[in-house]
Amino acid sequence: MSSERPSRSPDSAERLQRQIAFIVEADRLKGVLRKTTLCDGSRAENSAEHSWHLALMVSVLAEYAEPGVDSGRVLRMLLVHDLVEIDAGDTFAYDVAANVGREARELLAAERIFGLLPGEQAEEFRALWEEFEAQATMDARFAAALDRLQPLLNNHNSGGGSWRAHAVTREQVERRMRPIEVALPALWPLVRDIVDRNCAAGHIKPPATPSER
Amino acid sequence: MSSERPSRSPDSAERLQRQIAFIVEADRLKGVLRKTTLCDGSRAENSAEHSWHLALMVSVLAEYAEPGVDSGRVLRMLLVHDLVEIDAGDTFAYDVAANVGREARELLAAERIFGLLPGEQAEEFRALWEEFEAQATMDARFAAALDRLQPLLNNHNSGGGSWRAHAVTREQVERRMRPIEVALPALWPLVRDIVDRNCAAGHIKPPATPSER
Repeated sequence: MSSERPSRSPDSAERLQRQIAFIVEADRLKGVLRKTTLCDGSRAENSAEHSWHLALMVSVLAEYAEPGVDSGRVLRMLLVHDLVEIDAGDTFAYDVAANVGREARELLAAERIFGLLPGEQAEEFRALWEEFEAQATMDARFAAALDRLQPLLNNHNSGGGSWRAHAVTREQVERRMRPIEVALPALWPLVRDIVDRNCAAGHIKPPATPSER
Repeated sequence: MSSERPSRSPDSAERLQRQIAFIVEADRLKGVLRKTTLCDGSRAENSAEHSWHLALMVSVLAEYAEPGVDSGRVLRMLLVHDLVEIDAGDTFAYDVAANVGREARELLAAERIFGLLPGEQAEEFRALWEEFEAQATMDARFAAALDRLQPLLNNHNSGGGSWRAHAVTREQVERRMRPIEVALPALWPLVRDIVDRNCAAGHIKPPATPSER
């Protein structure tokens, strides 16, 4: 072990300190629980392990992305896309009431959490999150498609999971899965097949009648 | 929603089926518990959320990597580096007895788990895991440095964590952290400072006396 320590300017020391503070704060995402369970149904999934699963899926499924998608960027986007939940909590996609005010809560969270990082790095990470939220680029749309596919797989493998627990309807699921048709069309037949099978099994509720709409 | 489904060859259908099987199997990594706890000490960390944390750290700390390190590859390496634990379990780094036979167990696990993927993708993922294990490339060494730094931060923030719970000595910690000195030298002073402080606080045991060695 060398006894020499590189001399470091106060600026670079502060920079590293901020980066470490962000890394330590990020640990709290492991405590944010989602409505989706693990594939074995044993417990609710947390947003950190969910983010890992999505990142792994980029590696596996990149070949199905539309031409021009930068899978390395998608990967980095997915690693940070849920960090705001540390302050704002996970909002169940099918819960309309809970989604009121979500945007404002998440903006404040982004300000604080990405703001732990040094200036230009805070901007870079926050921009990736904003791009994911805005859904205006091909990279963001591919990321969103994976973010829809993973809970579909988990719900399917756990015998209905959060669809069943929260009486979600076929229409709601189909609307929620639409980004897959757009950004991951090769997987759309698989998605439809899984939805069909879970409707047939009673894990997804039949479409609402016109009077219920 | 279009009613047209792209025609797909049996080969491409089987390919996708294998990729989905791998993604679903990977979910089990969320059930593999490590000895390290979360930063708040509330529970043991699992290997999936640990892998997410490491991948995020690549994004944050890439600037400190030695020239020539490909941070995109390191990221993909870290996403798969612990998958063998689904079969082989997490082996506590400081437990000499538990490490006997680890390599053989992990080889079998790699064979089965990466083998779920289509041929050339199985090879690619397995090669990344083997590269991490062999520690012969700069990318693998940077990945290992982060894999050492993260539990150090978690142990430090949880008041000693697995060091304290398992009476780990200063020598053991210093040996375990050595990859950081090699591949992430800018962070070595920080590591030494954290080790010093945890020794002073009694969270890490003093060095063994010569007769204990």
